[in-house]
Amino acid sequence: MSEKKWKKTCLGAVLLIGIHAVVVGANDRAAVITEAGTVSIPRFSLPMSSYASDAAGPMLRGILTGPQMGITEKIANLRAHYDAINTARAERMKDMYPVTIEQDQIAGVRIQTVEPAGGPAREHQGKVLINLHGGAFMWGAGSGELVEAIPIAAQSGMRVITVDYRMAPEHVYPAASEDVFAVYNALLADYEPKNIGIYGCSAGGILTAQVTAWIIEHGARTPGAIGTFCGTGVDYAGDSSQLDPVFNGGTPVSKGGTALTMTRIPYFSKGSEGSRGVVPGNFPDLLEKFPPTLLLAGSRDFAASSLTVMHRRLAAVGVPSQLYLFDGLWHAFFMDAELSESQEAYRLIASFFTENLGKSER
Amino acid sequence: MSEKKWKKTCLGAVLLIGIHAVVVGANDRAAVITEAGTVSIPRFSLPMSSYASDAAGPMLRGILTGPQMGITEKIANLRAHYDAINTARAERMKDMYPVTIEQDQIAGVRIQTVEPAGGPAREHQGKVLINLHGGAFMWGAGSGELVEAIPIAAQSGMRVITVDYRMAPEHVYPAASEDVFAVYNALLADYEPKNIGIYGCSAGGILTAQVTAWIIEHGARTPGAIGTFCGTGVDYAGDSSQLDPVFNGGTPVSKGGTALTMTRIPYFSKGSEGSRGVVPGNFPDLLEKFPPTLLLAGSRDFAASSLTVMHRRLAAVGVPSQLYLFDGLWHAFFMDAELSESQEAYRLIASFFTENLGKSER
Repeated sequence: MSEKKWKKTCLGAVLLIGIHAVVVGANDRAAVITEAGTVSIPRFSLPMSSYASDAAGPMLRGILTGPQMGITEKIANLRAHYDAINTARAERMKDMYPVTIEQDQIAGVRIQTVEPAGGPAREHQGKVLINLHGGAFMWGAGSGELVEAIPIAAQSGMRVITVDYRMAPEHVYPAASEDVFAVYNALLADYEPKNIGIYGCSAGGILTAQVTAWIIEHGARTPGAIGTFCGTGVDYAGDSSQLDPVFNGGTPVSKGGTALTMTRIPYFSKGSEGSRGVVPGNFPDLLEKFPPTLLLAGSRDFAASSLTVMHRRLAAVGVPSQLYLFDGLWHAFFMDAELSESQEAYRLIASFFTENLGKSER
Repeated sequence: MSEKKWKKTCLGAVLLIGIHAVVVGANDRAAVITEAGTVSIPRFSLPMSSYASDAAGPMLRGILTGPQMGITEKIANLRAHYDAINTARAERMKDMYPVTIEQDQIAGVRIQTVEPAGGPAREHQGKVLINLHGGAFMWGAGSGELVEAIPIAAQSGMRVITVDYRMAPEHVYPAASEDVFAVYNALLADYEPKNIGIYGCSAGGILTAQVTAWIIEHGARTPGAIGTFCGTGVDYAGDSSQLDPVFNGGTPVSKGGTALTMTRIPYFSKGSEGSRGVVPGNFPDLLEKFPPTLLLAGSRDFAASSLTVMHRRLAAVGVPSQLYLFDGLWHAFFMDAELSESQEAYRLIASFFTENLGKSER
């Protein structure tokens, strides 16, 4: 390149960068939003929420910088990876929350019974919570069940039965709904429906809503209350599905990244995604038969928007429900019991079931 | 500059830009988050929430590209600007929601009484809602009162009394609390406390929480229920105060922009910001005396985080409360009655007061 060309090229580049800076710096509001309402977001730094506990920031860093594993990884690797994490979590939880754990089967489905040490509280005799573990409908059986059951059994004083439902890639929808329904039906021999609660986080939150729909569609009596955490009866969408990647060090959806939707979860075979049993929140006639519902997540969870929408839809058909969002926190934050917000979540979950189970049916 | 120097400088610049691009492009998760949990957010495009109504995107664009006026503008200009907007809104509302409007005074404070055409519903005789208008404690009197009262009076079938409380810059805290307390006390001659509701949006949401604290601190009986919308009893902070500027075409806080906090509102004179009467949500002994509370906002509102935090704090001290977030929507979105989400908000507000007023006191 000649010296003249160098000069020209360099000046051109600098000019281009300069114009770019001016345009970006101009903060012209007309330039940042399209007719359809798409907003251009500049590069910026987002501190951990000033409303989060001091431990939250370092914990989020630990999660984001720890080993990552996408759902396209080999299934054996995925299960081993998350089992190791959940086993460590469950061990730490056992020190914090004294419980007894029994392995068993109900209706041919493997379950675990987790009870507060010393047995369920007197006022909770005759009540039971069914926990449906998370893990993208692909992993989370075993140790993942314990992580969701131990603190809730201890905090609520209730018996918790966890269900090892069938998952992908070996099985597809509605295998998990069938398994949980079988366990639920078997439990009806010993428990009144109003004394049964069902809850879960992530895939377990979705499955809780789906099983409730399944129970309704099969004409069975509904449980007394349910909890759908970090996932619920409508698809992951809205702002949270766009913001989750950028909040968590990923590639923005608008730059070729992908938003998490049910179509990306192998368990939901093609054609099932929009159905009544999969997204009951889209069907008001189904939703109005739902029992009181607790919805809970971190505000940076890709599920946050879906929970706020489900909550509004439940309210619209007259179902009593409660929504709690934990500012600045991430998907399934309360799997780590050390976080003070996790303990707050356990208290909210325990209070909700204490308050809503055992009431006369709606 | 010599040709040699040109070459060197230019190559240096290109190299620097190149390294920067590689570092940024590498999507190295360790690089995007600090020990304290601050996340680097790349430039991206955020579409209007897929869970928002079709009208939301164009309406947001209209707001962002319309005339803007910061709170440092001359007070006469601010009031004229917002009065024109609110007068137009109120006129459109009168077509949608038939009401009667009367001007009056209570305890020396100017008020307006807004009733559904034909008078309050039979089941709501003896009940009244007090509306506290928004406007940064600086504007919103008159037409701003009507915008918040008309749809609620019509939707709920209740009488709504709006209060023209004293504002900044002429007055500072606790002038507004004193005025509303005077009106509340006068109304106690005709209404039982359990039959009185108080609600407001933005400054009015903050003031609703503050007046409730003021009532408690002065030993008076609390109202039956309150609604704090787009503002509440804790300071604007958390994720929403950081995200609001970038969601709305402003300068990110991390790049020299500013987050909205109470210290930026002239009404809160230095020293008052952290007090019991200003941020009652920071004082559990005060909060536990609160009546049932409805919290409602758009998820992109700078107030969203403060509402989720207030909701958790109310739950922690056993106060029944409800939180609704409207995905993708902005601060005070329901001032425009044409938006379907606004009408949904009116229904939620009306239902909440219908359900909670008239109950025996807590």
